[in-house]
Amino acid sequence: MASWVDIPPSSDFSLANIPFGIISTSDEPDPHVAVAIGIYVLDLKVLAANIDLPKIFTSLANHPHVFAQPTLNAFARLGRAVHREVRTTIQDLLSSETTRPEILRDNETLRQKALIPQRAVKMHLPMAIGDYTDFYAGYHHAYTVGVMFRGPQNALQPNYTHLPVGYHGRASSVVVSGTPIRRPRGQILLDPQSDKKEPQTSPTRKLDFELELGCFIATPNEMGESVSINEAEQHIFGYVLLNDWSARDIQAWEYVPLGPFNSKNFGTTVSPWVVLADALEPFRVRGIENTTPLQDYLKEEKAENVFDIQLEVDLTTPEGDTTTIARISGRNLMWSFPQMIAHHTLGGCPLQTGDLLGSGTVSGPGGASGGECGSLLEATEGGKKEVMLAGMDVRKFLKDGDTVTLRGVCGPDGARVGFGDCRGRVYSAPVSK
Amino acid sequence: MASWVDIPPSSDFSLANIPFGIISTSDEPDPHVAVAIGIYVLDLKVLAANIDLPKIFTSLANHPHVFAQPTLNAFARLGRAVHREVRTTIQDLLSSETTRPEILRDNETLRQKALIPQRAVKMHLPMAIGDYTDFYAGYHHAYTVGVMFRGPQNALQPNYTHLPVGYHGRASSVVVSGTPIRRPRGQILLDPQSDKKEPQTSPTRKLDFELELGCFIATPNEMGESVSINEAEQHIFGYVLLNDWSARDIQAWEYVPLGPFNSKNFGTTVSPWVVLADALEPFRVRGIENTTPLQDYLKEEKAENVFDIQLEVDLTTPEGDTTTIARISGRNLMWSFPQMIAHHTLGGCPLQTGDLLGSGTVSGPGGASGGECGSLLEATEGGKKEVMLAGMDVRKFLKDGDTVTLRGVCGPDGARVGFGDCRGRVYSAPVSK
Ligand SMILES: [Ca+2]
Ligand SMILES: [Ca+2]
Ligand SMILES: [Mg+2]
Ligand SMILES: [Mg+2]
Ligand code: NI
Repeated sequence: MASWVDIPPSSDFSLANIPFGIISTSDEPDPHVAVAIGIYVLDLKVLAANIDLPKIFTSLANHPHVFAQPTLNAFARLGRAVHREVRTTIQDLLSSETTRPEILRDNETLRQKALIPQRAVKMHLPMAIGDYTDFYAGYHHAYTVGVMFRGPQNALQPNYTHLPVGYHGRASSVVVSGTPIRRPRGQILLDPQSDKKEPQTSPTRKLDFELELGCFIATPNEMGESVSINEAEQHIFGYVLLNDWSARDIQAWEYVPLGPFNSKNFGTTVSPWVVLADALEPFRVRGIENTTPLQDYLKEEKAENVFDIQLEVDLTTPEGDTTTIARISGRNLMWSFPQMIAHHTLGGCPLQTGDLLGSGTVSGPGGASGGECGSLLEATEGGKKEVMLAGMDVRKFLKDGDTVTLRGVCGPDGARVGFGDCRGRVYSAPVSK
Repeated sequence: MASWVDIPPSSDFSLANIPFGIISTSDEPDPHVAVAIGIYVLDLKVLAANIDLPKIFTSLANHPHVFAQPTLNAFARLGRAVHREVRTTIQDLLSSETTRPEILRDNETLRQKALIPQRAVKMHLPMAIGDYTDFYAGYHHAYTVGVMFRGPQNALQPNYTHLPVGYHGRASSVVVSGTPIRRPRGQILLDPQSDKKEPQTSPTRKLDFELELGCFIATPNEMGESVSINEAEQHIFGYVLLNDWSARDIQAWEYVPLGPFNSKNFGTTVSPWVVLADALEPFRVRGIENTTPLQDYLKEEKAENVFDIQLEVDLTTPEGDTTTIARISGRNLMWSFPQMIAHHTLGGCPLQTGDLLGSGTVSGPGGASGGECGSLLEATEGGKKEVMLAGMDVRKFLKDGDTVTLRGVCGPDGARVGFGDCRGRVYSAPVSK
């Protein structure tokens, strides 16, 4: 499928993708809906205002303002059949052999207004997030971290292969790529092994990232009702990259018995473009095999239930040197998002449009030596080793001024389905008051 | 202070209270703001529309529609000085010796429209809750449950007296008093002691309540900034009773290593009237003594940092027999809400208007024999003993059709500051699909 838009072959945003995001521009300063195409965005608010919308996008006949909204929630709420029709229509409008050349391809006035270079737009958080849940489905991460804390015999808790372990996260501190992340202060033990547990309050010394995939919910379920595993796909809007910034020293001291809290709630970064569920369909693969007999509610029809996304983590030092410190496939999950949704709603918990689910840290089987660690905790064995960076620099954990960039892409050059950058730069903790 | 409204001496809603809530009526079906007074509500939307608002409520001159909103968030966001002026003005309008008798006391037309019997209004969730955090500040609960799980030597984790332990809860399933609560299905171990950990999926057999105090946030803090302990009071809007419904068998299996999830996220009930922070001021007492030296950010100027609320739990059987199964003072907390807020924001986590904090289960020193247990888990020692009910009925955990009602009140007859009921009735889990 070729486009009349000039798209670099290495672009994340080929005609096969068409991810949705929220932009503002100098002409349209109120945040509104766009899609990414090559180095451009197609401003859907501008497009909708300049065409016969019900004729071109028939499923939006009753929703004329859905692209003028400041979040994607209203569009997501319309359901997957509508997302599919809209994406297909946009693909047609942008295709070299479009069936409607007069709308955009041959309409220079509208092209000038609606097709805007990405560098000229500001990206915003794509969804209003009611609740954010972080799972723990990255098997290699769970195992490696478990070995560190409890030894190889007890690395995985007995529940791990029976259910997708998850916990409630903090929705208010989910931010869009590019938002600076302040190093948190917190209670830490300088000597965790000591019998005397005397914490001090200081900036975290063990600031880390976690490479995750995020999933946005499209359609809600009623409180008291569960979503069955084979219906769950229909509740998914799309996917983003997610960095679950983590303070390991704060986490170690606070997390018993009720789980992580301040070690996680200071910030979570998501990539700005929501890759629709349909766009990832061609890249399905089997996840990590689970030999434990599953409860019925977790049994999925599709064996290929995760995606072969090529994930990467870049670390850029304050001096500006960038090193790719990890390359991992998204297939390294033991639980799929439909399984997470079925489990989350098993007891009747209501999911709402815009809710965000994190996969848990994705690490590969290659571990530290293979460059397949989705966190520094794993790559440095909890700070025992160093990760080598360009320019002979090293890291155990993140320094002030470091930038972490997550990237993810599927498919061949010219037809890539990618996420764009999920980026955050660390700045200094406040001086103690 | 006497009112011209006829207020029963035992009413939770004396002139000393003036709690805020969201109502709808047959005349005004869109949810909007009211206060409770005796057996009536004063409809503030109707009041505002029929008076010279900027003259009577000077602080609302620029916020003429704040009482027409479907939640209290807009009002809460105005800050404590405004809440204080508005509450004081309402107290004056309702007082026998009001300085403005013409506004309401002597205005029969407006009285007829604005003063409505509570039984004629429907109550709604008072706030739009962005995030809900549940703490664990009830010392006796934490200790008793700790003994059950880990024995008396390790009952409290080493962090317990150093910081207010908390975890992120599920905002989407917080519901207003009266909303039925469906028994959740979930993964449970029938024999948790067995070496073979083979779960089954079924309705929880250990459905419990947790008696808690809830605190709503008024004004936000910026991401990356913390709220200092002595500023924290200024961020509090008011308080409600909170029932953190809990499924103990689901919890025991799922909660390692990341905390409670499906055992809690199926429902949390709050009382409908938000008792403003000012209304509880006269009832300050010292909390449970903590001999651990505190980190500076948790050191509070006020020693009297919790409230002497007389809390009660009623259990009503499907047959309609009601037993008061617990009577506990709200003073039984080791951490205050200002300490929780200072800790929650230490690393820069942004709190937003409408966010809800739960205190953790409040139990008294008297334990099971003293009728001071804020959960059945404690009262029945994890199901080993039975709680006696009226009519020679007994419970280990909740049955379908049971109703749990939390109540809380401060002050003497005629000047009570109470919360009204926080009530929920359990209905049956869905039949397995
Ligand atoms: Ca994580
Ligand atoms: Ca609780
Ligand atoms: Mg995070
Ligand atoms: Mg709950
Ligand atoms: Ni939330």
